[in-house]
Amino acid sequence: MTFNDLVKSIRAKKSFLCVGLDPDLDLLPKYLLEKEDPIFEFNKLIIDATKDFCIAYKPNLAFYEKLGPNGLISLHKTLQYIPKGFFIIADAKRSDIFNSANMYAETFYTYFNFDAVTLSPYMGVDAVNPFLKDNKWAILLIATSNPSASDVQNIKTDSGEPLYIELVNQMHSWGDHNNIMFVVGATRTKEMAYIRKKAPDHFFLVPGIGAQGGDIDMVCQSGLNRNCGLLINVSRSIIYAGSGKGFENDVRVASYNIQQKMESILREHQVI
Amino acid sequence: MTFNDLVKSIRAKKSFLCVGLDPDLDLLPKYLLEKEDPIFEFNKLIIDATKDFCIAYKPNLAFYEKLGPNGLISLHKTLQYIPKGFFIIADAKRSDIFNSANMYAETFYTYFNFDAVTLSPYMGVDAVNPFLKDNKWAILLIATSNPSASDVQNIKTDSGEPLYIELVNQMHSWGDHNNIMFVVGATRTKEMAYIRKKAPDHFFLVPGIGAQGGDIDMVCQSGLNRNCGLLINVSRSIIYAGSGKGFENDVRVASYNIQQKMESILREHQVI
Repeated sequence: MTFNDLVKSIRAKKSFLCVGLDPDLDLLPKYLLEKEDPIFEFNKLIIDATKDFCIAYKPNLAFYEKLGPNGLISLHKTLQYIPKGFFIIADAKRSDIFNSANMYAETFYTYFNFDAVTLSPYMGVDAVNPFLKDNKWAILLIATSNPSASDVQNIKTDSGEPLYIELVNQMHSWGDHNNIMFVVGATRTKEMAYIRKKAPDHFFLVPGIGAQGGDIDMVCQSGLNRNCGLLINVSRSIIYAGSGKGFENDVRVASYNIQQKMESILREHQVI
Repeated sequence: MTFNDLVKSIRAKKSFLCVGLDPDLDLLPKYLLEKEDPIFEFNKLIIDATKDFCIAYKPNLAFYEKLGPNGLISLHKTLQYIPKGFFIIADAKRSDIFNSANMYAETFYTYFNFDAVTLSPYMGVDAVNPFLKDNKWAILLIATSNPSASDVQNIKTDSGEPLYIELVNQMHSWGDHNNIMFVVGATRTKEMAYIRKKAPDHFFLVPGIGAQGGDIDMVCQSGLNRNCGLLINVSRSIIYAGSGKGFENDVRVASYNIQQKMESILREHQVI
């Protein structure tokens, strides 16, 4: 998917919601556990309930790998079930030397047909290059939403800038806003505003809304740009909005409410 | 496996060789491709040929995930085939928020029964904590062997130290030499000597010998300590030492030669 396709999709659906497909057998509605592939059944219902209100899906690989080979089969079926036109992110946070990175890229892009993969920046550009294919995206961890993130990411460098900004600056030579995005947590709005100054056109993938305590208005104040420039991911507060038979109705309402909120923000900021 | 068990194993086998189990269908002896599970057949022959000369095995997950669910099945069978007493490393280079990191830890430790997992340090200690279980190890990327690694890892911080040393210093509060190791590439001997000063007792996992250009003598000069303190990984120059039927004899000779070299180094440095 190109940058323009993504912006078009956001404007058409009046949403910049990414739904995190992170199914956990311990939290699934009990009746689904009797199905042959509960993970796939759950994801199908989530996709049907949310597809009118979101523009992206993001499975976190940890949830599938936990289930061994069967988890990868459920993931593969899930990706085939998602209708065309969505931006699909492998939340894998990989990084490896060129040879192995090439294999991961092949796995995610060719076998699974993802549009983008989240990556850790610590190994430098040659671990990222294999992911910068035509219409494919590397999404680099910059300022993550977890509690101890800033212990590393905000280490001050001798230029006076924190590490995460040094990395953003360096990444302007790795690629541009057409093939690189940044992970910036919803709990890191101060950092987000600063990164937006250094990278006015890049999309930010924003986890940490809801269960992790981030606030959508504060995120938009810090990170929204004229093309939106944000993909806000919500997992738990959408996919576990309901329980038991009919849980998908609660999922639909939860994602609709977020879309409505996003639509009013997009209008307010004159993106649509 | 405990620190003492590992040191005991090195002294008993007079080797600190870790064999990288990175099977690539394009490079396997052709006759194996006719077998039902060529990857597992190849790994079995490699393990049989090397087990007298090494103390650790390190499958890189990229090579197995590339093959989809079947790759994970081959990996699982491989791990069950390795005899007891070896130190088994998942070269996965993961990092994720606590919740997801917990799942990865469960996958690698419980489902696959690995002793250790390689991790990227960029998200801070809470992404590492789930891997610090009893007798299990987090192996943190510090100075990697790939060409662009130092662009990030050697960024100078305002303390005057490079980033990789700031991280080593910080990690003394994350764990100790009983549950944390560092990845230090064989091509980074200058950095290795400096890290050894800051972390006299930690084991280093050292990739980059052979195909990537690292030299075993220079590595030992820079990183060896009184308990050895090094696990030197060799992949391609052992596992592809031969081709065609009987390739395992060349594999045996290649790993024997490295063990002999290591034995003389251990004697010279009075580790044994």
